[in-house]
Amino acid sequence: MVRARALSVTSVDAIVEGVHFRLGEGWADIAEVGRRAMAGALSDLAAMGAQAGEVYIVLGLPAGLAEAQAMELVRAANGLARECGAVLAGGDVVAAPMLLVSVTAVGWAERAEELVGRDGARAGDLVGVTGQLGAAAAALAIQSAGLDRGADVAPALSRASHPRPRLREGHALARAGANAMIDISDGLATDADHIGRASGVQLQIELARLPLADGVRPVAAALGEPAWLLAARGGEDYELCFCIDPDRRERAERVLRELHGTPISWIGRAADGEPGAVLSDERGGAVAVEGFEHRW
Amino acid sequence: MVRARALSVTSVDAIVEGVHFRLGEGWADIAEVGRRAMAGALSDLAAMGAQAGEVYIVLGLPAGLAEAQAMELVRAANGLARECGAVLAGGDVVAAPMLLVSVTAVGWAERAEELVGRDGARAGDLVGVTGQLGAAAAALAIQSAGLDRGADVAPALSRASHPRPRLREGHALARAGANAMIDISDGLATDADHIGRASGVQLQIELARLPLADGVRPVAAALGEPAWLLAARGGEDYELCFCIDPDRRERAERVLRELHGTPISWIGRAADGEPGAVLSDERGGAVAVEGFEHRW
Repeated sequence: MVRARALSVTSVDAIVEGVHFRLGEGWADIAEVGRRAMAGALSDLAAMGAQAGEVYIVLGLPAGLAEAQAMELVRAANGLARECGAVLAGGDVVAAPMLLVSVTAVGWAERAEELVGRDGARAGDLVGVTGQLGAAAAALAIQSAGLDRGADVAPALSRASHPRPRLREGHALARAGANAMIDISDGLATDADHIGRASGVQLQIELARLPLADGVRPVAAALGEPAWLLAARGGEDYELCFCIDPDRRERAERVLRELHGTPISWIGRAADGEPGAVLSDERGGAVAVEGFEHRW
Repeated sequence: MVRARALSVTSVDAIVEGVHFRLGEGWADIAEVGRRAMAGALSDLAAMGAQAGEVYIVLGLPAGLAEAQAMELVRAANGLARECGAVLAGGDVVAAPMLLVSVTAVGWAERAEELVGRDGARAGDLVGVTGQLGAAAAALAIQSAGLDRGADVAPALSRASHPRPRLREGHALARAGANAMIDISDGLATDADHIGRASGVQLQIELARLPLADGVRPVAAALGEPAWLLAARGGEDYELCFCIDPDRRERAERVLRELHGTPISWIGRAADGEPGAVLSDERGGAVAVEGFEHRW
């Protein structure tokens, strides 16, 4: 039983072994699976500007998985929930042919104006993104292409296995006046497109301005791809992309600086035009970036 | 975004193909899967006496499942939710190696006293059960033992594939003063034992008093088992088992009669003694009944 605040928002998210992750040597460990499942659900709340409330975990456990492993998964998920200000309040365990984790996250707000949707961006808004991008895509490339795991790429691997949903940042940006916000779970290119379509504006993104996470550049070099491609395409970075009136730029920067020092990068503008997102490279040429769900 | 009432309760429940159901000729159809997943989550709310609120569905879809099938599952689940007064408010779809459905159900109450737990039964309470038992176990026996599907067993098959969580009944029984309540999802024997252990009392159940659903007797006869065994053991009947002071017996009967005419059967008493449930047959001999999760 939970004492409610005025408004609740609820997010559900599931990850399935063999689809969204692989377990074992060179792939995810069990704690990472718990953190990533929790991050996916909490990150949705962050994008709405909600305050973290309760989380509920459904575990589907294959016969071969030791109880200690399941406990470790829940412990890791719970640890991340607590860091984000959420409370693990219940769950269910069922048998399943492979490991699956479904997380329900409930957030709260006192007033409707505290919450942000994807549909409020206006022509003229600045487009901002919190933190750094590309670690999740870089880690996936390292794992699936079997790239060298040297010290230069270690930060990307570490960051991808320790996602940090931006709950406090999302709440602060909502209060600072963000008009639209989304969490980057399917890749910036895809998620910016979601905001543009929902708001009926065109988000014009300059790829050279995307903030790169440590360890992304050497992976891009090994792949022979531009680093911004990993930043624009990779899902599960769990940063926030938001649109805000230029008058509120300094206020947004200040509230995040005061909070955790989380940086904001200004990566483009919302404009009239075909709704969606248009990405351009250093020379101003339009670039098509296919987003993808993070698999494995 | 949902406008909250004072208190919320949340239930999560998942069912997985190959573990909790099988699809196909002679087994579950896709609509039944949706209803059963929804029933499992809503039934938990019923047992707490909460008013139905919002439901959220996570679907894990295998590659071979047609979109129309997935739609039919959601339509059936949503239909049951609406019958119970709940509103489908969101969800998520992921790829999965086999069909899985996870449902989160949120219920509401204005005051803590409106809600009932499992731990409030007192020595002297009457033990009641709503509706009829045994259909789910009978249907499972028909399917897994390949029993004849004649007209005499059809009501059990139909009922098992159309579960009806007792939300309005649970709310009414809570207001009528039930001291403890549980939904019968793991079988009466197991679930009554849960109440007894949580409350520190012994639920003394007379098996001959268990209300049998239509179609259960012929299945029991074909199996050569007593009919009460199917009623006591079978999960997923989604009736409510509750404990209430004898002074409130008539009030409980009246509120359910006024609601839908749902009958109550008085099946035993709570008493001092080893906490749990003790089941006895017509001759008064104690009977051990192993509960089990409904699989397939």
